Amino acid sequence: MKKKFITENFLLQGAFAQELYHDHAAHLPIIDYHNHLSPSAIADDKSFATITEVWLQGDHYKWRAMRAHGVDEDYITGSADDKAKFLKWGHTVPYTMRNPLYHWTHLELQRYFGINDLLSDKNATDIYHLCTDMLQQDDYTAQGLLSKMKVELVCTTDDPTDDLCHHKKMQNSESAIKMLPTFRPDKYCDINHVGFLTGIESLESIVGYSINSFDTLIEALKNRIDYFEERGCQLADHGLSQLFKIKNHQLNFNKILDRKKSGQEVTSEDAAFFQMSVLHELGKIYHTKGWVMQMHLGALRNNNSRLMNLVGADVGCDSIGDYKHGEGLSYFLDGLDQIEKLPKTILYNLNPRDNELFATMAGNYNDGSSAGKIQWGSAWWFLDQKDGMEKQINALSNMGLLSCFIGMLTDSRSFLSFPRHEYFRRILCQMIGADVEAGLLPHDMDFLSKMVGDICYNNAKRYLDI
Amino acid sequence: MKKKFITENFLLQGAFAQELYHDHAAHLPIIDYHNHLSPSAIADDKSFATITEVWLQGDHYKWRAMRAHGVDEDYITGSADDKAKFLKWGHTVPYTMRNPLYHWTHLELQRYFGINDLLSDKNATDIYHLCTDMLQQDDYTAQGLLSKMKVELVCTTDDPTDDLCHHKKMQNSESAIKMLPTFRPDKYCDINHVGFLTGIESLESIVGYSINSFDTLIEALKNRIDYFEERGCQLADHGLSQLFKIKNHQLNFNKILDRKKSGQEVTSEDAAFFQMSVLHELGKIYHTKGWVMQMHLGALRNNNSRLMNLVGADVGCDSIGDYKHGEGLSYFLDGLDQIEKLPKTILYNLNPRDNELFATMAGNYNDGSSAGKIQWGSAWWFLDQKDGMEKQINALSNMGLLSCFIGMLTDSRSFLSFPRHEYFRRILCQMIGADVEAGLLPHDMDFLSKMVGDICYNNAKRYLDI
Amino acid sequence: MKKKFITENFLLQGAFAQELYHDHAAHLPIIDYHNHLSPSAIADDKSFATITEVWLQGDHYKWRAMRAHGVDEDYITGSADDKAKFLKWGHTVPYTMRNPLYHWTHLELQRYFGINDLLSDKNATDIYHLCTDMLQQDDYTAQGLLSKMKVELVCTTDDPTDDLCHHKKMQNSESAIKMLPTFRPDKYCDINHVGFLTGIESLESIVGYSINSFDTLIEALKNRIDYFEERGCQLADHGLSQLFKIKNHQLNFNKILDRKKSGQEVTSEDAAFFQMSVLHELGKIYHTKGWVMQMHLGALRNNNSRLMNLVGADVGCDSIGDYKHGEGLSYFLDGLDQIEKLPKTILYNLNPRDNELFATMAGNYNDGSSAGKIQWGSAWWFLDQKDGMEKQINALSNMGLLSCFIGMLTDSRSFLSFPRHEYFRRILCQMIGADVEAGLLPHDMDFLSKMVGDICYNNAKRYLDI
Repeated sequence: MKKKFITENFLLQGAFAQELYHDHAAHLPIIDYHNHLSPSAIADDKSFATITEVWLQGDHYKWRAMRAHGVDEDYITGSADDKAKFLKWGHTVPYTMRNPLYHWTHLELQRYFGINDLLSDKNATDIYHLCTDMLQQDDYTAQGLLSKMKVELVCTTDDPTDDLCHHKKMQNSESAIKMLPTFRPDKYCDINHVGFLTGIESLESIVGYSINSFDTLIEALKNRIDYFEERGCQLADHGLSQLFKIKNHQLNFNKILDRKKSGQEVTSEDAAFFQMSVLHELGKIYHTKGWVMQMHLGALRNNNSRLMNLVGADVGCDSIGDYKHGEGLSYFLDGLDQIEKLPKTILYNLNPRDNELFATMAGNYNDGSSAGKIQWGSAWWFLDQKDGMEKQINALSNMGLLSCFIGMLTDSRSFLSFPRHEYFRRILCQMIGADVEAGLLPHDMDFLSKMVGDICYNNAKRYLDI
Repeated sequence: MKKKFITENFLLQGAFAQELYHDHAAHLPIIDYHNHLSPSAIADDKSFATITEVWLQGDHYKWRAMRAHGVDEDYITGSADDKAKFLKWGHTVPYTMRNPLYHWTHLELQRYFGINDLLSDKNATDIYHLCTDMLQQDDYTAQGLLSKMKVELVCTTDDPTDDLCHHKKMQNSESAIKMLPTFRPDKYCDINHVGFLTGIESLESIVGYSINSFDTLIEALKNRIDYFEERGCQLADHGLSQLFKIKNHQLNFNKILDRKKSGQEVTSEDAAFFQMSVLHELGKIYHTKGWVMQMHLGALRNNNSRLMNLVGADVGCDSIGDYKHGEGLSYFLDGLDQIEKLPKTILYNLNPRDNELFATMAGNYNDGSSAGKIQWGSAWWFLDQKDGMEKQINALSNMGLLSCFIGMLTDSRSFLSFPRHEYFRRILCQMIGADVEAGLLPHDMDFLSKMVGDICYNNAKRYLDI
Repeated sequence: MKKKFITENFLLQGAFAQELYHDHAAHLPIIDYHNHLSPSAIADDKSFATITEVWLQGDHYKWRAMRAHGVDEDYITGSADDKAKFLKWGHTVPYTMRNPLYHWTHLELQRYFGINDLLSDKNATDIYHLCTDMLQQDDYTAQGLLSKMKVELVCTTDDPTDDLCHHKKMQNSESAIKMLPTFRPDKYCDINHVGFLTGIESLESIVGYSINSFDTLIEALKNRIDYFEERGCQLADHGLSQLFKIKNHQLNFNKILDRKKSGQEVTSEDAAFFQMSVLHELGKIYHTKGWVMQMHLGALRNNNSRLMNLVGADVGCDSIGDYKHGEGLSYFLDGLDQIEKLPKTILYNLNPRDNELFATMAGNYNDGSSAGKIQWGSAWWFLDQKDGMEKQINALSNMGLLSCFIGMLTDSRSFLSFPRHEYFRRILCQMIGADVEAGLLPHDMDFLSKMVGDICYNNAKRYLDI
């Protein structure tokens, strides 16, 4: 096995796809409009002590794989040292063949560290030291790693109560990388969220008044939206299992809020009604601001109580849920559109069985005001792999207009995950190239290269107006 | 880009597929057993003033694409003139690459108008005039367009109160094209349908008695079924979101009907019970008549109230729903089968995630009385494209018998949509040819050509007994 | 059509796949860890009078196909003689092209009887006699047929009240084939199961005490688990439509049981609560025993009452259901995992739309204690065909670790179904080989051949500790 694994034409079969990628996609900068990078790490241009710190810490994709492979938690999120953890990961890597981790791993080793070898038991120690050493170089800091991948913009994900000091610092710096916040108010919308009451308290102390009614809640959130807007924010993001169609509008929001604040139980029906009402009000504000509203729907979270108690949330024990989406989505989007207050919207689904529903639902609210106003977002989380991307791109093509798509985002916590944009671009070019060679698309490099450039960069730039 | 886009072997790769299509499928006449063509346009052999009239008017597939591309409603369903609308469509076409519209557009331009060029901004004006001029020729009338595609039979979709005068006129004409009605009583089955009460009034005025009970409703519908039968009708069609399993049979139909007629609200549960009961009675009548019962399930309609108020229903704001189908389908089909009254049935689903459920459900009620008695219908609406057809054909193959399939229908409002039969046939031949070349099917042209001929023509002819 | 249909490289395209299969998979013995073979037929080493008896009797896959093809029930489950039935099957076979039956049929004819011809009307009589004659040979008994396919272990499916005498006989015999029972207590868990009350009576007469409480029910089942364990049992199996998330724990199990025993109705909600509670207790016992717990979820059974009354259950009138699984699975698995009592578990889903949900759900409960502790089982029932296997293998690869997969099982009633392991192995090797040739996997025969050997044999051996 002397041959390089990630070759120049990795994923690209056929001349058209290769030309499309190399000449028209590879060089484009990256707009990563949704991720979970640490704003402080970016603003402070953090250095990383070891490859384990930057590559394994916080990466619940790798953790899941290691657990499935029988690795003890001590080597995953536990007290083992960085080298020992890395060796366990190196041991696991060959067993991830056919999982996206196998491609990501070797793409990242090659792009950031120039390593062409396949990680395994045999070379894990060497690679640990090699990468860790390289990380001590000046250009391997947080910003250095982003620059290597030509990242132009990152949009982080931030709590409404965040003071955004890191974003301010970054904006005042001379860095070529732009970092903008994203307004993510999940726990203030869901009255039964474990963090609702403490969240409200924080919010009260910031806005300086008591949140004792639905209107004051919205007012306080609006206050923070204004604050975020001043720091350049142009996107909001919401994560929830599903949207609900609310039939009975007789409920009293303030009473629901009172119940909650006085420690009484709020039924899931009341909570859903409350949440949908908050989202409706926020949607109106986003529209006024010209923001983009993102909706991440369908995750079934925290399935493993034992590990949750041990390690915390977001540690690799979430899965794909089977929620009902159609009527709730329609109710919510139509509710805003009727009053001409539907903002630009990106819908993401986690269960691929809902791909076609989401693709067609997005299409219902394009009103001709701008191309691709309502987007069905790129393959998310578990679907962020070759098969998932292909299915999303195919369903979007068949049910809507691929040409208007704003393309890829990492949604990642990792500074080493940006080759996933390359991965997406190669897959996109390959799909189009294969269609051309099969006679399903015309051999029109002019138009298709423009389309690829739009999807990989220009559409997002235009959509976000940056 | 000098090469023709739609070549002779469009979609056909490999010698077996090409021989199968060209020698055994291409020449077959078309039985279009379900569509929404205008009976008067056919009977009156309508002429079309412009290509916009025949191609864009009423085509909500194109409308959706134009809205997604940022075209103002004025140029879609609005007051812009025919040429201006066509230019906007021409501008949009390249941006539909990978959407079925791109293939349909060029297939239709070539088959009807002999145009091989790819429609775009550059030639939209020329093509507008060229096609509009050709439409003035004698053989470009409604019947002329059907004849060009060797259409033998069209089954339209008609309201029970329709007098079917156009069908009568057509049957008395010398046209080689046969036009039969289809009985579509949706609004008379669903008591909460917006048109139920006015529908009942129309029905009362035709049958000449008051519909004041469940029995008189069924009697009136039976009266119209007899009327339709006399005009050659052999199919019924029902469109609804889902079928329900009804557990409580204690409800009183007549009381539900009384409530409705006296302006009181009927609960969705009562309405579902009522609807399922009407459908059960209709199924029995269809069985007695030897009719085919079609069920189109799973659409989530009229999601955009603003456009609905502006333009009306069926304007491209419908989407794929996520309804529960299993138990309701089983309850309904079994309810008829138990009493040996289950008619020949075609089930269509709109959400491809339900493909396998529908494929296996159909198989439960084949009783050996005839081959393919219960059909899982061809890929419908949003699924009526290459990927959707392939998935339907594959699921049907794996879960049932492809050989018994009655194949393609357009379900279209457009007189220019008949090359979709060619599209289907090419895809089918390609799938079979590819299997032969991969060794998954025997190299048996005798049997496979018979199978293809059956699916494309003979099975439908036998199934509908025409 | 002189060419053999099932060639040496059937399903294998490309050198890597061919080498992988022929050198590393083909020779491996078979561990069939879940099937519905008759223990008495194995223990008694049954001979078969005709090919119809061993091939068509009890094979509801073939029955469904024959009914779809218009064959009268008389020739399927009715009174026609064995030869007449076989001729009808022979007539049907060409019409099953693209259905897995077509591949299975010819694979089985070739592997067991050396027949390369394609079964049809033309040769059905000859093949009937040829096979029937061969079945009279000494090595065509039940055990002989298993030995031909190198079957090392079969795990049958047995009622808790079974005395397992055939398993004992087999274990005392000198047969090289190992036969172990599987504990399948469906009707004792589901209080509304048609066989619950008679089942409880049988159980009472075996354990020798009255089952008059939840605790005595669990005790009696535990008694039988001990009995099964003594006969080598290492697996349990449960078949149900779905698992439920139970929110209200206030219900009284004993009262529910009392209601049932006194002939009163038990609501489906109470029944679900009861069932989930029994399953929870059984799960704890399985964990203590070190058993594997299998869950077959999602079938919608007995849809055809007419045929059910005529022929009985399990006759080919079951279909794929659309049940909600996410929260119920999470609730059940987490409930056991929280108390560190979650046994090794295999989850099987029947609706392929749930593939990704099941794949990710399994991954939530791997705790590093052993590789692949929680398995997402191989494509089941309707999905047990090329397309279904490919989708399961792909989803498992993308969402989990294919390398830890325990692979194929027949789940079959037929002694001639074991070439399905070959079918699975060829498909697996082809998928991996194609990936290597497309550059998606490294050209690493050492690791990939180990991985294939693990999936086809070693993982199951290790998992079941045999």
